[in-house]
Amino acid sequence: SLARRCHHRSTAMLDVPFLPFCAFLGTLGLLCMAMVGTWCQHWRGGFSLDGSSRTFNWHPVLMVTGLVVLYGAAALVYRIPNTWSGPKLPWKVLHGSLALGAFILTVLGLAAVFRFHNAQGTPNMYSLHSWMGLATVLLFSCQWAVGFGAFLLPWAPTWLRALYKPIHVFFGSTILMLSVASCASGINEKLFFSLKNGTMQYKLLPAEAVFANTLGLLILVFGVLVVAALARPSWKRPDSDSLDSRQVRDALGG
Amino acid sequence: SLARRCHHRSTAMLDVPFLPFCAFLGTLGLLCMAMVGTWCQHWRGGFSLDGSSRTFNWHPVLMVTGLVVLYGAAALVYRIPNTWSGPKLPWKVLHGSLALGAFILTVLGLAAVFRFHNAQGTPNMYSLHSWMGLATVLLFSCQWAVGFGAFLLPWAPTWLRALYKPIHVFFGSTILMLSVASCASGINEKLFFSLKNGTMQYKLLPAEAVFANTLGLLILVFGVLVVAALARPSWKRPDSDSLDSRQVRDALGG
Repeated sequence: SLARRCHHRSTAMLDVPFLPFCAFLGTLGLLCMAMVGTWCQHWRGGFSLDGSSRTFNWHPVLMVTGLVVLYGAAALVYRIPNTWSGPKLPWKVLHGSLALGAFILTVLGLAAVFRFHNAQGTPNMYSLHSWMGLATVLLFSCQWAVGFGAFLLPWAPTWLRALYKPIHVFFGSTILMLSVASCASGINEKLFFSLKNGTMQYKLLPAEAVFANTLGLLILVFGVLVVAALARPSWKRPDSDSLDSRQVRDALGG
Repeated sequence: SLARRCHHRSTAMLDVPFLPFCAFLGTLGLLCMAMVGTWCQHWRGGFSLDGSSRTFNWHPVLMVTGLVVLYGAAALVYRIPNTWSGPKLPWKVLHGSLALGAFILTVLGLAAVFRFHNAQGTPNMYSLHSWMGLATVLLFSCQWAVGFGAFLLPWAPTWLRALYKPIHVFFGSTILMLSVASCASGINEKLFFSLKNGTMQYKLLPAEAVFANTLGLLILVFGVLVVAALARPSWKRPDSDSLDSRQVRDALGG
């Protein structure tokens, strides 16, 4: 098409194909999940449901898996070229299901830290990390519920969907940015809590600190790349009601 | 023009004019600067150059002022409609000067924390906050130097500028995202350091904690809004080499 040809001429040298980029992102996401699991298993005592710090360990694992990696996968569904033709409903269901899976893991991740705090007699919701994190989860719950009501239930008129869609897209990227910022502050805070005494102090940069700092940076890279992929014009569904495709249609008298 | 007319038809109900939005962003940025200054002055003992925690206090003030607020102002220069016609060089000089000012404040902000650590015998560069922050500043220094070489010095050929421009734009938003994530982790970490004993513990959520947590959230909102403003197609310079304007020109046979 015209749009693709013009685009290819101007940025051919920088063109990255979407699917290899996705394979890279998927590998990076799996690496983040493996690293957060390894951190909690190898250095923080593993997992349990007894209210101890081994219960807390579910928190970072579920948040990175749900609110970062699975959320990122859900957000990118409409960038897969296969979704651009044929019926849209199956892809909507996939997008909504992945987001619902991410949301369920997120709620379980919240439950883990609340159970840990309550069992230890620690107050909930005092740190900036907890405020950011809860704001992120609340935005995500609104995003899912309003998205479901507007795009999957049949009652919403076309003009309402068209009005809400850019808002949904905006909050899609915003929630991921807040999510990775919450992860970074959470990993930082956990390392200060855990590495306090003797030769294992955080400031002495033991192996655990190098490992978890690296995990934090990789999560940030993952988030930045997903947000960038979402914003890239040539990876957007060309038959959507976006500015680009309308301009071309109208200019061609279509 | 055609592009603006089409755009207005499809999103008229959500249209926010750029300049009022900028006035709001400017107010929010000034509020963040006032709050970080108030936090350090009222609760953390004010400012000095003696290597004490009063030297450290320059760190958050300079980072929020430089790497968030002034950086955001620099990034938004080309979104001002006045920059879209007439000679581009004065706006390039403004963009580069604001970014240079932001960079100088950032380096002074780094100097403050290094001086504090060295005076106290604390190691530098061990926390995830410091790794993220230094990565952000290193990216910013590359961004400024390469941008200066490619766009302000006369030697760069047009094809090289066209190739580098999307990379510069990508890193412009990325650096701001990393910057606000660094601020959030830094405020969180500082509150855990400072609010440790007696009735002032962070977990008891004293007034300082509420104030600084709120500052952290406002910085995140500022960052998200600047990144969103940068990504908004209708606020981009329409005569640039962007996909949108090329499509229309080509489709019209222009």
